[in-house]
Amino acid sequence: MIFSNTEFYYTPPKFISDKTIIITDVEAKHISRVMRHKVDDIILITNGEGKIYQSVIKNITKNEVIAESKKVFTQGNNLSNITFCIPILKTSDRFEFALEKCVELGITNFLIFSANKSYKRGVKLERWDKILLAAMKQSLQSHKPKIDYTNSLQKILQQKTNKIYFEQNSELSIEDYLNEKSNSKLLRDEKTFFVFGPEGGLTDEELSSDENNIRLKLTSNRLRSETAIMHTASILSRS
Amino acid sequence: MIFSNTEFYYTPPKFISDKTIIITDVEAKHISRVMRHKVDDIILITNGEGKIYQSVIKNITKNEVIAESKKVFTQGNNLSNITFCIPILKTSDRFEFALEKCVELGITNFLIFSANKSYKRGVKLERWDKILLAAMKQSLQSHKPKIDYTNSLQKILQQKTNKIYFEQNSELSIEDYLNEKSNSKLLRDEKTFFVFGPEGGLTDEELSSDENNIRLKLTSNRLRSETAIMHTASILSRS
Repeated sequence: MIFSNTEFYYTPPKFISDKTIIITDVEAKHISRVMRHKVDDIILITNGEGKIYQSVIKNITKNEVIAESKKVFTQGNNLSNITFCIPILKTSDRFEFALEKCVELGITNFLIFSANKSYKRGVKLERWDKILLAAMKQSLQSHKPKIDYTNSLQKILQQKTNKIYFEQNSELSIEDYLNEKSNSKLLRDEKTFFVFGPEGGLTDEELSSDENNIRLKLTSNRLRSETAIMHTASILSRS
Repeated sequence: MIFSNTEFYYTPPKFISDKTIIITDVEAKHISRVMRHKVDDIILITNGEGKIYQSVIKNITKNEVIAESKKVFTQGNNLSNITFCIPILKTSDRFEFALEKCVELGITNFLIFSANKSYKRGVKLERWDKILLAAMKQSLQSHKPKIDYTNSLQKILQQKTNKIYFEQNSELSIEDYLNEKSNSKLLRDEKTFFVFGPEGGLTDEELSSDENNIRLKLTSNRLRSETAIMHTASILSRS
C-alpha cells in the first residue's frame, strides 16, 4: 500500500483497544483545530509500531478524538536492527536536519553521544523526539523512531553489536560491502551500529577500545558530518 | 589521489599561466589572514575545471597571493551531463542546504526555477553561487558548480535533453532504471535534466507540455522536496 496526498496521525498502542482508538492532547487538537476534521471524517492513525488504522471519527471533545478502525494496514521495517550512533554536532540546525532526513529515509534507531571533539551543546532528547515523530508522520511511515543519549562513545563500543565506521582511506567501499549478500543479511538479522564522527573526527583514544569493527569508505571526497550521515541513510534505504 | 585533512583554494583558469598562479581578493585574504599561510608554504589550488595544483607560495601582498605550481592532479566528473532542476522552496534554509549537499555528493549543474506552486522568494544567484563554491572546496572537489535561474518550468521543458521526474506511484524505480546499463551510459553520455517539484508538487499544466519524459519512483514513502533532491544526489553519486 502506497500512501500519498494524506496525513498520518499518531497515538500509542495503549490507546488502541480492539477497534476503538483514542487520540489525546496536541495530536487531538491538531486533528480538530488545525486540520478541522469533523465527526464521520476518515483519517489514518498509526500506532508507531508498523500499523496504520483507516478510521472514522466518532467523537471530538476538547482534548480527545475518538475514532473507530475500519481497516488495518501493516508496514515492515527493513532497518529495525540498524542504529545510527551520531555525535552532537557543532551546529544544531545541521544536527537536527540530519535526524529528520534519516527518519524520512527509514532509519528508526538513534543513539546520540558526546564525542571528545563534540561541541558540548545541550542534550535535548524531548525536542529531538518531537522532530523524529514529526518526520515519521510527514513521510507517511509508521515505525516510531527511538532516540537515546550516552555521554561517551565508550559505552557504545562496549555493547556487543556489529559496528561500522567510515574512513575516507579505507579500501573497502560501502557499495562493495553491501553487494556481498552475507553482509546485507547480517544488517537485517543482527544488531549493527553505524558510528559517525563529529566535525573533527573521532580520536584514536576513542577508537582504541574497539579493535573488532568494520571500516568502510563512503565516498572518495570529504563529506561534512551531517552529509555522511544522510548519505549513509540514503544508501541503506535502498539496500 | 584521495585528499583529506587539507584545504582547497580556488582561482579561475585566467589567473593560471604556465606555472604561475595568482589568487586574488577574498580567497587571497583567506589564505594569508585566516589560514595564516606564509611564503614557502605548500597549498592546493583548484581551477574549478578538474585540476588541482600543488603549489608553493612565492609572494603575499595585501590583495594577492602568488604561487608556483609544482605538481598537477586531475579529477574526473562522472555527473557532468546531469543537471538538477530545482524549484525555489518555501524555506530558504532547506533550499540552500539541499544545494550544499548536492555539491558535496558531486552534482555540478543546477537550474533553479519558480514553479507554479513555488513561494516567490528572491532569486539570489550570487549567494547561491557562494554556497556552491564553498561546498566544492570544503568537500575537496575541483569542478566548480554552475547555477542558473529561469522563471518558468516551460523554458526548461523546451530544451532538447532527456528529462527525469519522480512520482511516488510510478512503477519503475530509480534503482531498476539505473541497473539497466544502457541507462547508466545515457546519463554519462547525454544531457539529462532531473526535474524536482516544490512542496505542493508540479501542476498538470506545468507538465502537460512535456509528454516525452521518464517518470521514476524514488521511494515508496513520501519525501520532503529537499530530501528527494539529496537522496537522488546520493544515488547518482554511487552510480
